Amino acid sequence: MTYANPNFEGDARTSFAQQSVMNLIGASLSLVQPGVVEISLPYRADLTQQNGYLHAGIITTIADSACGYAAFTLMPAGAGVLSVEFKVNLLRPAKGDSFVARAEVIKAGRTLTVVRADVFALSQERRSLIATMQGTMIRV
Amino acid sequence: MTYANPNFEGDARTSFAQQSVMNLIGASLSLVQPGVVEISLPYRADLTQQNGYLHAGIITTIADSACGYAAFTLMPAGAGVLSVEFKVNLLRPAKGDSFVARAEVIKAGRTLTVVRADVFALSQERRSLIATMQGTMIRV
Amino acid sequence: MTYANPNFEGDARTSFAQQSVMNLIGASLSLVQPGVVEISLPYRADLTQQNGYLHAGIITTIADSACGYAAFTLMPAGAGVLSVEFKVNLLRPAKGDSFVARAEVIKAGRTLTVVRADVFALSQERRSLIATMQGTMIRV
Amino acid sequence: MTYANPNFEGDARTSFAQQSVMNLIGASLSLVQPGVVEISLPYRADLTQQNGYLHAGIITTIADSACGYAAFTLMPAGAGVLSVEFKVNLLRPAKGDSFVARAEVIKAGRTLTVVRADVFALSQERRSLIATMQGTMIRV
Repeated sequence: MTYANPNFEGDARTSFAQQSVMNLIGASLSLVQPGVVEISLPYRADLTQQNGYLHAGIITTIADSACGYAAFTLMPAGAGVLSVEFKVNLLRPAKGDSFVARAEVIKAGRTLTVVRADVFALSQERRSLIATMQGTMIRV
Repeated sequence: MTYANPNFEGDARTSFAQQSVMNLIGASLSLVQPGVVEISLPYRADLTQQNGYLHAGIITTIADSACGYAAFTLMPAGAGVLSVEFKVNLLRPAKGDSFVARAEVIKAGRTLTVVRADVFALSQERRSLIATMQGTMIRV
Repeated sequence: MTYANPNFEGDARTSFAQQSVMNLIGASLSLVQPGVVEISLPYRADLTQQNGYLHAGIITTIADSACGYAAFTLMPAGAGVLSVEFKVNLLRPAKGDSFVARAEVIKAGRTLTVVRADVFALSQERRSLIATMQGTMIRV
Repeated sequence: MTYANPNFEGDARTSFAQQSVMNLIGASLSLVQPGVVEISLPYRADLTQQNGYLHAGIITTIADSACGYAAFTLMPAGAGVLSVEFKVNLLRPAKGDSFVARAEVIKAGRTLTVVRADVFALSQERRSLIATMQGTMIRV
Protein backbone atom coordinates (compact mmCIF):
# COMPACT_ATOMS: atom_id res chain seq x y z
CA MET A 1 0.00 0.00 0.00
CA THR A 2 1.21 3.50 -0.78
CA TYR A 3 0.30 6.65 1.04
CA ALA A 4 -0.21 10.19 -0.19
CA ASN A 5 2.58 11.19 2.20
CA PRO A 6 5.10 8.40 2.90
CA ASN A 7 6.51 10.45 5.80
CA PHE A 8 3.11 10.99 7.41
CA GLU A 9 4.27 9.96 10.87
CA GLY A 10 7.34 12.18 10.95
CA ASP A 11 5.41 15.12 9.57
CA ALA A 12 2.62 14.62 12.10
CA ARG A 13 5.13 14.47 14.95
CA THR A 14 6.89 17.61 13.74
CA SER A 15 3.61 19.52 13.57
CA PHE A 16 2.47 18.19 16.94
CA ALA A 17 5.71 19.43 18.52
CA GLN A 18 4.75 22.91 17.30
CA GLN A 19 1.41 22.83 19.13
CA SER A 20 2.67 24.57 22.23
CA VAL A 21 -0.57 23.98 24.11
CA MET A 22 0.23 20.26 24.12
CA ASN A 23 3.36 20.98 26.09
CA LEU A 24 1.43 23.20 28.50
CA ILE A 25 -1.08 20.49 29.34
CA GLY A 26 1.35 17.57 29.16
CA ALA A 27 -0.14 15.71 26.19
CA SER A 28 1.83 13.41 23.90
CA LEU A 29 1.26 11.77 20.53
CA SER A 30 1.09 8.09 21.44
CA LEU A 31 0.03 6.50 18.14
CA VAL A 32 0.28 7.62 14.51
CA GLN A 33 -1.04 5.26 11.86
CA PRO A 34 -2.70 5.97 8.53
CA GLY A 35 -6.07 7.44 9.44
CA VAL A 36 -5.70 6.69 13.16
CA VAL A 37 -4.06 8.86 15.82
CA GLU A 38 -3.98 8.70 19.61
CA ILE A 39 -3.04 11.47 22.03
CA SER A 40 -2.41 10.69 25.69
CA LEU A 41 -2.73 12.97 28.67
CA PRO A 42 -1.94 12.20 32.32
CA TYR A 43 -4.34 13.65 34.88
CA ARG A 44 -3.23 16.90 36.48
CA ALA A 45 -5.16 18.90 39.05
CA ASP A 46 -4.56 22.11 37.12
CA LEU A 47 -6.56 20.86 34.12
CA THR A 48 -9.86 20.52 35.92
CA GLN A 49 -13.28 22.10 36.26
CA GLN A 50 -15.10 22.87 39.51
CA ASN A 51 -15.61 19.20 40.54
CA GLY A 52 -12.02 18.13 39.97
CA TYR A 53 -12.80 16.38 36.65
CA LEU A 54 -10.84 17.08 33.49
CA HIS A 55 -12.41 20.17 31.90
CA ALA A 56 -14.46 19.48 28.76
CA GLY A 57 -12.30 21.98 26.91
CA ILE A 58 -9.17 19.95 27.68
CA ILE A 59 -10.91 16.76 26.59
CA THR A 60 -11.74 18.65 23.40
CA THR A 61 -8.16 19.86 23.02
CA ILE A 62 -6.77 16.34 22.76
CA ALA A 63 -9.72 15.01 20.76
CA ASP A 64 -9.51 17.84 18.23
CA SER A 65 -5.77 17.44 17.69
CA ALA A 66 -6.17 13.68 17.39
CA CYS A 67 -8.82 14.25 14.70
CA GLY A 68 -6.67 16.79 12.90
CA TYR A 69 -3.62 14.54 12.78
CA ALA A 70 -5.68 11.49 11.81
CA ALA A 71 -6.90 13.48 8.81
CA PHE A 72 -3.36 14.78 8.18
CA THR A 73 -1.89 11.26 7.90
CA LEU A 74 -3.95 10.69 4.73
CA MET A 75 -3.12 14.02 3.07
CA PRO A 76 -0.32 14.66 0.56
CA ALA A 77 3.05 15.84 1.81
CA GLY A 78 3.09 19.56 2.45
CA ALA A 79 -0.61 19.82 3.27
CA GLY A 80 -1.81 21.73 6.29
CA VAL A 81 -4.91 20.88 8.28
CA LEU A 82 -7.38 23.02 10.22
CA SER A 83 -10.57 22.20 12.12
CA VAL A 84 -13.79 23.29 10.44
CA GLU A 85 -16.13 22.15 13.20
CA PHE A 86 -16.65 19.45 15.78
CA LYS A 87 -19.32 18.17 18.08
CA VAL A 88 -18.61 16.56 21.43
CA ASN A 89 -20.89 14.51 23.66
CA LEU A 90 -19.70 14.22 27.26
CA LEU A 91 -20.71 10.77 28.45
CA ARG A 92 -19.29 10.30 31.92
CA PRO A 93 -17.34 12.38 34.47
CA ALA A 94 -13.73 12.70 33.30
CA LYS A 95 -12.10 10.96 36.24
CA GLY A 96 -8.98 8.86 35.79
CA ASP A 97 -5.23 8.58 36.14
CA SER A 98 -4.83 9.40 32.49
CA PHE A 99 -6.81 9.96 29.32
CA VAL A 100 -6.43 8.99 25.71
CA ALA A 101 -8.17 10.41 22.65
CA ARG A 102 -8.31 7.96 19.74
CA ALA A 103 -9.34 9.42 16.37
CA GLU A 104 -10.25 7.51 13.23
CA VAL A 105 -11.01 8.91 9.82
CA ILE A 106 -14.53 8.10 8.64
CA LYS A 107 -14.31 9.71 5.21
CA ALA A 108 -11.24 11.27 3.66
CA GLY A 109 -12.03 13.70 0.86
CA ARG A 110 -9.88 15.94 -1.29
CA THR A 111 -10.80 19.04 0.70
CA LEU A 112 -12.77 17.87 3.74
CA THR A 113 -12.16 14.89 5.99
CA VAL A 114 -14.68 13.64 8.54
CA VAL A 115 -13.20 12.13 11.68
CA ARG A 116 -14.50 10.59 14.88
CA ALA A 117 -12.64 10.53 18.20
CA ASP A 118 -13.41 8.58 21.35
CA VAL A 119 -11.87 9.77 24.61
CA PHE A 120 -11.20 7.22 27.35
CA ALA A 121 -10.35 7.64 31.03
CA LEU A 122 -7.86 5.07 32.28
CA SER A 123 -7.34 3.88 35.83
CA GLN A 124 -5.93 0.71 37.34
CA GLU A 125 -9.39 -0.84 37.36
CA ARG A 126 -10.92 0.25 34.11
CA ARG A 127 -10.95 2.04 30.77
CA SER A 128 -14.16 3.98 30.28
CA LEU A 129 -15.45 6.00 27.37
CA ILE A 130 -15.97 9.55 28.65
CA ALA A 131 -16.57 11.54 25.46
CA THR A 132 -16.99 11.20 21.73
CA MET A 133 -16.31 13.75 19.00
CA GLN A 134 -17.52 13.93 15.40
CA GLY A 135 -15.80 16.60 13.35
CA THR A 136 -14.73 17.97 10.00
CA MET A 137 -11.15 18.87 9.08
CA ILE A 138 -10.05 20.88 6.03
CA ARG A 139 -6.88 20.62 4.00
CA VAL A 140 -5.26 23.99 3.46
CA MET B 1 -37.63 40.86 38.74
CA THR B 2 -36.70 37.92 40.92
CA TYR B 3 -34.21 35.21 40.12
CA ALA B 4 -34.13 31.55 41.05
CA ASN B 5 -30.82 32.28 42.76
CA PRO B 6 -30.47 35.88 43.99
CA ASN B 7 -26.74 35.30 44.57
CA PHE B 8 -26.15 33.94 41.06
CA GLU B 9 -23.14 36.17 40.42
CA GLY B 10 -21.32 35.35 43.64
CA ASP B 11 -22.02 31.65 43.24
CA ALA B 12 -20.82 31.67 39.62
CA ARG B 13 -17.62 33.46 40.64
CA THR B 14 -17.00 31.01 43.47
CA SER B 15 -17.42 28.05 41.13
CA PHE B 16 -15.30 29.65 38.42
CA ALA B 17 -12.48 30.14 40.94
CA GLN B 18 -12.55 26.36 41.46
CA GLN B 19 -11.98 25.66 37.76
CA SER B 20 -8.23 25.35 38.04
CA VAL B 21 -7.77 25.14 34.28
CA MET B 22 -8.90 28.76 34.05
CA ASN B 23 -5.95 29.77 36.18
CA LEU B 24 -3.61 27.66 34.06
CA ILE B 25 -4.62 29.38 30.83
CA GLY B 26 -5.12 32.84 32.34
CA ALA B 27 -8.88 33.22 31.74
CA SER B 28 -11.14 35.43 33.83
CA LEU B 29 -14.88 35.85 34.29
CA SER B 30 -15.49 39.31 32.85
CA LEU B 31 -19.30 39.50 32.86
CA VAL B 32 -22.00 37.69 34.84
CA GLN B 33 -25.60 38.66 34.15
CA PRO B 34 -28.78 36.58 34.24
CA GLY B 35 -28.43 34.24 31.27
CA VAL B 36 -25.33 35.97 29.90
CA VAL B 37 -21.70 35.32 30.79
CA GLU B 38 -18.40 36.44 29.29
CA ILE B 39 -14.98 34.91 29.82
CA SER B 40 -11.84 36.75 28.70
CA LEU B 41 -8.48 35.33 27.78
CA PRO B 42 -5.32 37.22 26.81
CA TYR B 43 -3.26 35.68 24.02
CA ARG B 44 -0.31 33.57 25.16
CA ALA B 45 2.11 31.71 22.91
CA ASP B 46 1.78 28.57 25.04
CA LEU B 47 -1.93 28.20 24.18
CA THR B 48 -1.47 27.75 20.46
CA GLN B 49 -1.61 25.17 17.71
CA GLN B 50 0.98 24.61 14.98
CA ASN B 51 0.39 27.96 13.20
CA GLY B 52 0.55 30.09 16.32
CA TYR B 53 -3.23 30.56 16.53
CA LEU B 54 -5.15 29.86 19.72
CA HIS B 55 -5.88 26.11 19.76
CA ALA B 56 -9.52 25.20 19.05
CA GLY B 57 -9.57 23.29 22.34
CA ILE B 58 -8.71 26.45 24.27
CA ILE B 59 -11.36 28.40 22.37
CA THR B 60 -13.72 25.61 23.42
CA THR B 61 -12.53 25.75 27.02
CA ILE B 62 -13.63 29.36 27.47
CA ALA B 63 -16.78 28.95 25.36
CA ASP B 64 -17.90 25.87 27.27
CA SER B 65 -17.41 27.46 30.69
CA ALA B 66 -19.17 30.62 29.51
CA CYS B 67 -22.12 28.45 28.41
CA GLY B 68 -22.11 26.52 31.67
CA TYR B 69 -22.14 29.63 33.85
CA ALA B 70 -24.73 31.36 31.65
CA ALA B 71 -27.00 28.36 32.30
CA PHE B 72 -26.00 28.37 35.99
CA THR B 73 -27.12 31.98 36.53
CA LEU B 74 -30.73 30.94 35.86
CA MET B 75 -30.71 27.86 38.10
CA PRO B 76 -31.85 27.69 41.73
CA ALA B 77 -29.28 28.18 44.47
CA GLY B 78 -27.34 25.02 45.18
CA ALA B 79 -27.64 23.64 41.67
CA GLY B 80 -24.64 22.23 39.85
CA VAL B 81 -24.14 22.34 36.10
CA LEU B 82 -22.40 19.99 33.68
CA SER B 83 -21.98 20.04 29.91
CA VAL B 84 -24.02 17.46 28.02
CA GLU B 85 -22.72 18.29 24.56
CA PHE B 86 -21.60 21.17 22.38
CA LYS B 87 -20.85 21.90 18.78
CA VAL B 88 -18.28 24.43 17.65
CA ASN B 89 -17.76 25.99 14.22
CA LEU B 90 -14.35 27.60 13.74
CA LEU B 91 -14.90 30.61 11.51
CA ARG B 92 -11.57 32.41 11.24
CA PRO B 93 -7.98 31.91 12.44
CA ALA B 94 -7.81 32.64 16.17
CA LYS B 95 -5.37 35.56 15.99
CA GLY B 96 -5.60 38.48 18.38
CA ASP B 97 -4.28 40.20 21.47
CA SER B 98 -7.07 38.69 23.51
CA PHE B 99 -10.24 36.67 23.18
CA VAL B 100 -13.66 36.79 24.73
CA ALA B 101 -16.35 34.12 24.80
CA ARG B 102 -19.86 35.52 25.25
CA ALA B 103 -22.58 33.00 26.07
CA GLU B 104 -26.33 33.59 26.06
CA VAL B 105 -29.04 31.19 27.14
CA ILE B 106 -31.43 30.33 24.32
CA LYS B 107 -33.79 28.12 26.29
CA ALA B 108 -33.65 27.44 30.02
CA GLY B 109 -35.43 24.27 31.05
CA ARG B 110 -35.87 22.54 34.38
CA THR B 111 -33.25 19.92 33.54
CA LEU B 112 -31.61 21.00 30.28
CA THR B 113 -30.55 24.47 29.16
CA VAL B 114 -29.52 25.29 25.60
CA VAL B 115 -26.87 27.98 25.25
CA ARG B 116 -25.01 29.67 22.44
CA ALA B 117 -21.56 31.26 22.71
CA ASP B 118 -19.74 33.48 20.27
CA VAL B 119 -15.98 33.81 20.60
CA PHE B 120 -14.31 37.01 19.43
CA ALA B 121 -10.67 37.88 18.80
CA LEU B 122 -9.77 41.40 19.83
CA SER B 123 -6.92 43.54 18.56
CA GLN B 124 -6.33 47.28 18.38
CA GLU B 125 -7.91 47.38 14.95
CA ARG B 126 -10.84 45.04 15.20
CA ARG B 127 -13.13 42.60 16.96
CA SER B 128 -13.81 39.57 14.83
CA LEU B 129 -16.01 36.54 15.39
CA ILE B 130 -13.74 33.49 15.29
CA ALA B 131 -15.98 30.70 16.56
CA THR B 132 -19.51 29.92 17.61
CA MET B 133 -20.78 27.18 19.95
CA GLN B 134 -24.24 25.70 20.39
CA GLY B 135 -24.54 23.43 23.40
CA THR B 136 -26.66 21.76 26.05
CA MET B 137 -26.06 22.04 29.79
CA ILE B 138 -27.66 19.90 32.49
CA ARG B 139 -28.58 20.78 36.05
CA VAL B 140 -27.32 18.22 38.55
CA MET C 1 -24.20 47.30 -3.11
CA THR C 2 -23.44 44.61 -5.65
CA TYR C 3 -23.91 40.90 -5.22
CA ALA C 4 -21.89 37.98 -6.51
CA ASN C 5 -25.06 36.83 -8.25
CA PRO C 6 -27.47 39.65 -9.14
CA ASN C 7 -30.17 37.07 -9.89
CA PHE C 8 -29.77 35.31 -6.53
CA GLU C 9 -33.49 35.30 -5.79
CA GLY C 10 -34.59 33.90 -9.13
CA ASP C 11 -31.86 31.27 -9.05
CA ALA C 12 -32.76 30.25 -5.49
CA ARG C 13 -36.43 29.95 -6.44
CA THR C 14 -35.61 27.88 -9.50
CA SER C 15 -33.48 25.49 -7.44
CA PHE C 16 -36.06 25.29 -4.66
CA ALA C 17 -38.72 24.31 -7.21
CA GLN C 18 -36.48 21.35 -8.09
CA GLN C 19 -36.43 20.08 -4.49
CA SER C 20 -39.31 17.69 -4.92
CA VAL C 21 -39.46 16.89 -1.21
CA MET C 22 -40.64 20.46 -0.60
CA ASN C 23 -43.68 19.78 -2.73
CA LEU C 24 -44.32 16.51 -0.89
CA ILE C 25 -44.38 18.18 2.53
CA GLY C 26 -46.01 21.43 1.38
CA ALA C 27 -43.16 23.83 2.12
CA SER C 28 -42.65 27.15 0.32
CA LEU C 29 -39.86 29.69 0.01
CA SER C 30 -41.31 32.70 1.80
CA LEU C 31 -38.32 35.07 1.92
CA VAL C 32 -35.14 35.35 -0.13
CA GLN C 33 -32.74 38.14 0.76
CA PRO C 34 -28.94 38.31 0.58
CA GLY C 35 -27.79 35.94 3.29
CA VAL C 36 -31.28 35.40 4.72
CA VAL C 37 -33.88 32.85 3.66
CA GLU C 38 -37.17 31.71 5.15
CA ILE C 39 -39.10 28.55 4.37
CA SER C 40 -42.67 28.12 5.58
CA LEU C 41 -44.58 24.94 6.25
CA PRO C 42 -48.22 24.55 7.29
CA TYR C 43 -48.93 21.84 9.86
CA ARG C 44 -50.14 18.54 8.44
CA ALA C 45 -50.97 15.41 10.43
CA ASP C 46 -48.96 13.27 8.03
CA LEU C 47 -45.70 15.03 8.95
CA THR C 48 -45.69 14.04 12.60
CA GLN C 49 -44.00 11.76 15.09
CA GLN C 50 -45.71 9.54 17.66
CA ASN C 51 -47.09 12.43 19.77
CA GLY C 52 -48.58 14.37 16.86
CA TYR C 53 -45.76 16.96 16.82
CA LEU C 54 -43.88 17.81 13.64
CA HIS C 55 -41.12 15.21 13.26
CA ALA C 56 -37.61 16.50 14.01
CA GLY C 57 -36.57 15.31 10.56
CA ILE C 58 -39.15 17.54 8.90
CA ILE C 59 -38.05 20.47 11.05
CA THR C 60 -34.55 19.68 9.83
CA THR C 61 -35.72 19.45 6.21
CA ILE C 62 -36.91 23.06 6.14
CA ALA C 63 -34.04 24.34 8.31
CA ASP C 64 -31.42 22.67 6.14
CA SER C 65 -32.85 24.00 2.88
CA ALA C 66 -33.18 27.47 4.41
CA CYS C 67 -29.49 27.30 5.39
CA GLY C 68 -28.49 26.05 1.96
CA TYR C 69 -30.33 28.80 0.10
CA ALA C 70 -29.15 31.48 2.53
CA ALA C 71 -25.59 30.44 1.65
CA PHE C 72 -26.52 30.22 -2.04
CA THR C 73 -27.70 33.84 -2.18
CA LEU C 74 -24.15 35.02 -1.51
CA MET C 75 -22.44 32.73 -4.03
CA PRO C 76 -21.54 33.60 -7.63
CA ALA C 77 -24.00 32.78 -10.40
CA GLY C 78 -23.76 29.16 -11.47
CA ALA C 79 -22.61 27.88 -8.08
CA GLY C 80 -24.19 24.82 -6.52
CA VAL C 81 -24.55 24.27 -2.78
CA LEU C 82 -24.55 21.12 -0.66
CA SER C 83 -24.79 20.56 3.08
CA VAL C 84 -21.58 19.46 4.79
CA GLU C 85 -23.01 19.05 8.26
CA PHE C 86 -25.52 20.52 10.66
CA LYS C 87 -26.46 20.34 14.29
CA VAL C 88 -29.97 20.81 15.59
CA ASN C 89 -31.19 21.44 19.12
CA LEU C 90 -34.89 20.72 19.65
CA LEU C 91 -36.12 23.26 22.18
CA ARG C 92 -39.86 22.78 22.51
CA PRO C 93 -42.54 20.40 21.17
CA ALA C 94 -43.21 21.26 17.52
CA LYS C 95 -46.88 22.18 17.91
CA GLY C 96 -48.47 24.92 15.82
CA ASP C 97 -50.63 25.85 12.87
CA SER C 98 -47.55 26.43 10.78
CA PHE C 99 -43.78 26.60 11.01
CA VAL C 100 -41.10 28.82 9.58
CA ALA C 101 -37.37 28.22 9.34
CA ARG C 102 -35.33 31.43 9.14
CA ALA C 103 -31.68 31.04 8.16
CA GLU C 104 -28.97 33.69 8.35
CA VAL C 105 -25.40 33.41 7.12
CA ILE C 106 -22.87 33.83 9.92
CA LYS C 107 -19.73 33.58 7.82
CA ALA C 108 -19.56 33.30 4.04
CA GLY C 109 -16.30 31.87 2.76
CA ARG C 110 -15.06 31.05 -0.70
CA THR C 111 -15.64 27.32 -0.19
CA LEU C 112 -17.51 26.94 3.10
CA THR C 113 -20.35 29.02 4.51
CA VAL C 114 -21.55 28.75 8.11
CA VAL C 115 -25.25 29.38 8.62
CA ARG C 116 -27.66 29.40 11.54
CA ALA C 117 -31.40 28.71 11.31
CA ASP C 118 -34.10 29.23 13.89
CA VAL C 119 -37.36 27.35 13.48
CA PHE C 120 -40.54 28.86 14.89
CA ALA C 121 -43.99 27.39 15.50
CA LEU C 122 -46.80 29.83 14.78
CA SER C 123 -50.32 29.80 16.16
CA GLN C 124 -52.95 32.49 16.69
CA GLU C 125 -51.60 33.15 20.16
CA ARG C 126 -47.88 32.96 19.75
CA ARG C 127 -44.66 32.47 17.84
CA SER C 128 -42.29 30.20 19.70
CA LEU C 129 -38.76 29.08 18.93
CA ILE C 130 -38.85 25.30 18.66
CA ALA C 131 -35.44 24.45 17.20
CA THR C 132 -32.13 25.96 16.18
CA MET C 133 -29.60 24.70 13.63
CA GLN C 134 -25.94 25.54 13.16
CA GLY C 135 -24.47 24.16 9.96
CA THR C 136 -21.86 24.28 7.23
CA MET C 137 -22.63 24.53 3.51
CA ILE C 138 -20.16 23.97 0.69
CA ARG C 139 -20.04 25.57 -2.74
CA VAL C 140 -19.66 23.01 -5.51
CA MET D 1 -30.29 -11.35 30.29
CA THR D 2 -33.27 -9.24 31.34
CA TYR D 3 -34.37 -5.96 29.86
CA ALA D 4 -35.96 -2.92 31.43
CA ASN D 5 -38.87 -3.47 29.05
CA PRO D 6 -39.34 -7.12 28.00
CA ASN D 7 -41.76 -5.99 25.28
CA PHE D 8 -39.34 -3.43 23.83
CA GLU D 9 -39.81 -4.61 20.26
CA GLY D 10 -43.57 -4.60 20.29
CA ASP D 11 -43.67 -1.22 22.00
CA ALA D 12 -41.20 0.24 19.53
CA ARG D 13 -43.21 -1.06 16.59
CA THR D 14 -46.44 0.33 18.04
CA SER D 15 -44.88 3.77 18.49
CA PHE D 16 -43.27 3.68 15.05
CA ALA D 17 -46.68 2.95 13.50
CA GLN D 18 -47.87 6.22 15.08
CA GLN D 19 -45.15 8.25 13.35
CA SER D 20 -47.29 9.24 10.39
CA VAL D 21 -44.36 10.81 8.58
CA MET D 22 -42.85 7.33 8.19
CA ASN D 23 -45.89 6.30 6.19
CA LEU D 24 -45.67 9.46 4.07
CA ILE D 25 -42.07 8.79 3.05
CA GLY D 26 -42.37 5.00 2.89
CA ALA D 27 -39.98 4.07 5.70
CA SER D 28 -40.19 0.84 7.70
CA LEU D 29 -38.69 -0.49 10.90
CA SER D 30 -36.44 -3.28 9.66
CA LEU D 31 -34.55 -4.27 12.83
CA VAL D 32 -35.29 -3.85 16.53
CA GLN D 33 -32.77 -5.24 18.98
CA PRO D 34 -31.74 -4.02 22.42
CA GLY D 35 -29.87 -0.81 21.74
CA VAL D 36 -29.84 -1.26 17.96
CA VAL D 37 -32.51 -0.21 15.48
CA GLU D 38 -32.60 -0.03 11.69
CA ILE D 39 -35.05 1.90 9.52
CA SER D 40 -35.22 1.26 5.78
CA LEU D 41 -36.37 3.59 3.04
CA PRO D 42 -36.68 2.85 -0.67
CA TYR D 43 -35.64 5.67 -3.02
CA ARG D 44 -38.47 7.80 -4.32
CA ALA D 45 -38.13 10.79 -6.64
CA ASP D 46 -40.43 12.86 -4.43
CA LEU D 47 -37.98 12.72 -1.50
CA THR D 48 -35.13 14.52 -3.22
CA GLN D 49 -33.28 17.81 -3.29
CA GLN D 50 -32.34 19.80 -6.40
CA ASN D 51 -29.84 17.23 -7.76
CA GLY D 52 -32.12 14.23 -7.40
CA TYR D 53 -30.37 12.93 -4.27
CA LEU D 54 -32.29 12.06 -1.11
CA HIS D 55 -32.74 15.31 0.82
CA ALA D 56 -30.56 15.65 3.94
CA GLY D 57 -33.72 16.24 5.96
CA ILE D 58 -35.13 12.88 4.90
CA ILE D 59 -31.82 11.19 5.73
CA THR D 60 -32.14 12.88 9.11
CA THR D 61 -35.75 11.77 9.50
CA ILE D 62 -34.85 8.08 9.36
CA ALA D 63 -31.60 8.52 11.33
CA ASP D 64 -33.34 10.45 14.10
CA SER D 65 -36.14 7.91 14.49
CA ALA D 66 -33.63 5.05 14.45
CA CYS D 67 -31.72 6.80 17.25
CA GLY D 68 -34.89 7.45 19.21
CA TYR D 69 -36.07 3.85 19.03
CA ALA D 70 -32.59 2.48 19.76
CA ALA D 71 -32.67 4.51 22.98
CA PHE D 72 -36.28 3.45 23.61
CA THR D 73 -35.44 -0.28 23.53
CA LEU D 74 -33.32 0.16 26.67
CA MET D 75 -35.88 2.19 28.61
CA PRO D 76 -38.46 0.87 31.10
CA ALA D 77 -41.93 0.00 29.85
CA GLY D 78 -44.13 3.05 29.58
CA ALA D 79 -41.30 5.47 28.91
CA GLY D 80 -41.50 8.01 26.11
CA VAL D 81 -38.54 9.31 24.15
CA LEU D 82 -37.82 12.66 22.51
CA SER D 83 -34.81 14.01 20.64
CA VAL D 84 -32.76 16.60 22.50
CA GLU D 85 -30.27 17.29 19.72
CA PHE D 86 -28.37 15.66 16.91
CA LYS D 87 -25.52 16.38 14.58
CA VAL D 88 -25.27 14.99 11.08
CA ASN D 89 -22.30 14.85 8.73
CA LEU D 90 -23.22 14.26 5.09
CA LEU D 91 -20.43 12.17 3.61
CA ARG D 92 -21.43 11.31 0.07
CA PRO D 93 -24.29 12.10 -2.34
CA ALA D 94 -27.38 10.18 -1.24
CA LYS D 95 -27.81 8.09 -4.38
CA GLY D 96 -29.12 4.54 -4.24
CA ASP D 97 -32.03 2.18 -4.73
CA SER D 98 -32.73 2.26 -1.03
CA PHE D 99 -31.32 3.57 2.24
CA VAL D 100 -30.96 2.21 5.71
CA ALA D 101 -30.26 4.07 8.95
CA ARG D 102 -28.65 1.90 11.62
CA ALA D 103 -28.55 3.35 15.13
CA GLU D 104 -26.61 2.02 18.11
CA VAL D 105 -26.70 3.28 21.67
CA ILE D 106 -23.32 4.54 22.87
CA LYS D 107 -24.32 5.39 26.43
CA ALA D 108 -27.70 4.74 28.03
CA GLY D 109 -28.36 6.89 31.07
CA ARG D 110 -31.35 7.25 33.34
CA THR D 111 -32.45 10.49 31.70
CA LEU D 112 -30.25 10.97 28.63
CA THR D 113 -29.10 8.42 26.08
CA VAL D 114 -26.40 9.11 23.50
CA VAL D 115 -26.83 7.33 20.18
CA ARG D 116 -24.98 7.15 16.89
CA ALA D 117 -26.56 6.32 13.52
CA ASP D 118 -24.90 5.49 10.23
CA VAL D 119 -26.94 5.87 7.07
CA PHE D 120 -26.10 3.69 4.07
CA ALA D 121 -27.15 3.90 0.43
CA LEU D 122 -27.73 0.50 -1.13
CA SER D 123 -27.58 -0.42 -4.80
CA GLN D 124 -26.95 -3.66 -6.66
CA GLU D 125 -23.24 -2.92 -6.72
CA ARG D 126 -22.51 -1.47 -3.34
CA ARG D 127 -23.42 -0.32 0.17
CA SER D 128 -21.90 3.06 0.93
CA LEU D 129 -21.94 5.17 4.06
CA ILE D 130 -23.59 8.46 3.14
CA ALA D 131 -24.16 10.11 6.52
CA THR D 132 -23.50 9.72 10.22
CA MET D 133 -25.45 11.14 13.16
CA GLN D 134 -24.46 11.64 16.79
CA GLY D 135 -27.33 12.61 19.04
CA THR D 136 -28.91 12.79 22.47
CA MET D 137 -32.32 11.36 23.36
CA ILE D 138 -34.28 12.06 26.54
CA ARG D 139 -36.67 9.81 28.43
CA VAL D 140 -39.92 11.55 29.25
